[in-house]
Amino acid sequence: MKIAILGFGTVGSGVYEIAKTLKNIEVKKVLEKDLMSKINIATNNYDEIINDKEIELIVECMGGLHPAYEFIMKAIQNKKSVVSANKAVIAKYLDEFLKTAKENNVEFCFEASVGGGIPCLAGIQKIHRIENIDKFYGIFNGTSNFILDNMYRFENEFFTSLKTAQKLGYAEADPSADIDGYDVTNKVIISFTLAYDGFIKNEFPCFTMKNITKEDILYFKKQSFVAKYIGEATTKGNEYEASVMLNLFPINALEANVLGNYNIITVQSHTMGEVKFYGQGAGKLPTANAIIQDILDIQAKISFNPISIEKKYTYSSNLFKHKYVIRSNEELKGNFERIDRDGNNFYHYTKEIIQADLLKLVEEKDYLVVKLNEY
Amino acid sequence: MKIAILGFGTVGSGVYEIAKTLKNIEVKKVLEKDLMSKINIATNNYDEIINDKEIELIVECMGGLHPAYEFIMKAIQNKKSVVSANKAVIAKYLDEFLKTAKENNVEFCFEASVGGGIPCLAGIQKIHRIENIDKFYGIFNGTSNFILDNMYRFENEFFTSLKTAQKLGYAEADPSADIDGYDVTNKVIISFTLAYDGFIKNEFPCFTMKNITKEDILYFKKQSFVAKYIGEATTKGNEYEASVMLNLFPINALEANVLGNYNIITVQSHTMGEVKFYGQGAGKLPTANAIIQDILDIQAKISFNPISIEKKYTYSSNLFKHKYVIRSNEELKGNFERIDRDGNNFYHYTKEIIQADLLKLVEEKDYLVVKLNEY
Repeated sequence: MKIAILGFGTVGSGVYEIAKTLKNIEVKKVLEKDLMSKINIATNNYDEIINDKEIELIVECMGGLHPAYEFIMKAIQNKKSVVSANKAVIAKYLDEFLKTAKENNVEFCFEASVGGGIPCLAGIQKIHRIENIDKFYGIFNGTSNFILDNMYRFENEFFTSLKTAQKLGYAEADPSADIDGYDVTNKVIISFTLAYDGFIKNEFPCFTMKNITKEDILYFKKQSFVAKYIGEATTKGNEYEASVMLNLFPINALEANVLGNYNIITVQSHTMGEVKFYGQGAGKLPTANAIIQDILDIQAKISFNPISIEKKYTYSSNLFKHKYVIRSNEELKGNFERIDRDGNNFYHYTKEIIQADLLKLVEEKDYLVVKLNEY
Repeated sequence: MKIAILGFGTVGSGVYEIAKTLKNIEVKKVLEKDLMSKINIATNNYDEIINDKEIELIVECMGGLHPAYEFIMKAIQNKKSVVSANKAVIAKYLDEFLKTAKENNVEFCFEASVGGGIPCLAGIQKIHRIENIDKFYGIFNGTSNFILDNMYRFENEFFTSLKTAQKLGYAEADPSADIDGYDVTNKVIISFTLAYDGFIKNEFPCFTMKNITKEDILYFKKQSFVAKYIGEATTKGNEYEASVMLNLFPINALEANVLGNYNIITVQSHTMGEVKFYGQGAGKLPTANAIIQDILDIQAKISFNPISIEKKYTYSSNLFKHKYVIRSNEELKGNFERIDRDGNNFYHYTKEIIQADLLKLVEEKDYLVVKLNEY
């Protein structure tokens, strides 16, 4: 199969590198704005790729919303299958991409967009072809996990750990997508579609993780808890609940022991109980591997479950009750189960409350909010 | 697709239960020696199933070597695909089953035989279609993990924990397959075939885990280590190394935090690094789920990688060096890195040595042998 790669950065060059080792995939063209790589198949003219009838499949590794959206749509409309790792554009336009791909009788695949090389979307699809999924949750972002793990193990301040992550290439110069939760939000939206056959919008609570301090980490450590940044979703009838926020895990939970920039994603269902997928959620070769897996599936016509977006779900903030811990530097009024003072911090343990009540409690305040979960 | 189930015990009845919820699978016959279940499709005459042209696929859930072997061969020779969870018969006859299935143009699938419901064999196959697998290792047996976890957390003696496992249905009256390592050995042999395209024999070291004591567990705990029962394999050219034995993990390793009867299986490769699959490695519904997954794959003609047994591997006891800890109640002579005395026990820490040297050190003695691994 002849393919083209759009973008020749970290992931694009990784796809090129792995494809070279395989007999059945030939990279015929690479789209590169600045032609920096000097490889002889590079072009900066997308039409050259679109008009090449031999190119059956296009790998989009440009990132960002535009022109990624336009390039993906143009490829699909020209009857080329598309494989993408670009969670931002997929979380925004997945419905349109799937619909257009179906109309044009080609595939749109995106395993690499969630969990990098970890086969978690395939895992969700496989379970879902047999039964309904009760819930999924996990550490979907390596950068924020690196920071939390570094703070926990070396008792560093947030910005010290962030700088270490940046120095090691695990965090970008502008880290907001990773630490403010946009990246995890996108991955929850994408996973949700495969788990529940519906396309949801970015309308569920997302709390940043950047206001956690060394003092918080040490206080939780004393309580035998480890804070991890978790995305999750579940449904009840036609309503869904989802969130992106810090969660506390007991020190012997698997999640508590996911170190460095690794990811772990859990899928819960009736017959399987909890299945967890662990591995490198980002990086050149793991992400490229997932893209190649999609290409091989398209070649071999492997499809576990046709992806559907037919079900309509409404976000509800009163579906399920959970316990939370709210940290502020003053004692809050309210019906709490327990309030701990540690230095200048007050840790308020809520009773089991619905998301709507949590949101009322914290409003626009800069409190730290963590879920005390029952996993 | 019309199918038959051989055996209506825990797993067989689980397959029946899940199949009833699916449109595309109809259980037409159940083979049951004693017709105890009273379901109206039960028969005790296998020929009734073999001669039924409508039955395209047979699920073997009888366990044991015979007549499972004969029944599987007869099904394949009569052009029926077979799905089995019976690791004993598969580890012994996989080469013959695969060869005969190929000759008869039908499938032989066995995801459920390793890791129960965990999609780890599919995971190995997916990675292997892109690249060579460097190594696999894991907690492949829920019974032994339940015992080790119970000993560790509740500081129980081995037999107390074994009895608890038996009471809860996690261990059989005769637990030797689980605690002496035959079960894990079978799973290593089966996983090896998918990872390395070769069929190996039961000829690599297998140490029982039943000689670990409460004192050992407490001593290792003081060193911040957790003992887990691990199966693993790797290759170098046409030689392979494998083992089934207790391994020590640091307390913050994921393996150290796999509680109860759960399994975790790790696959290592160049582009992916470590990918781990975690879940229930046994039990009625998880195992049945994996069987149904195989049936759906056969129906949809999904195959990641044709299974090959063409490569020939020889077991070698001098491929790689590892560190081990040997516990005895007397001080052993030898060139050890360190010897700890704890109560009446002597813990001997070896230098990095090859398997052959380990085997020489412990010979037929009833020492506890654990691997101090570098994971």
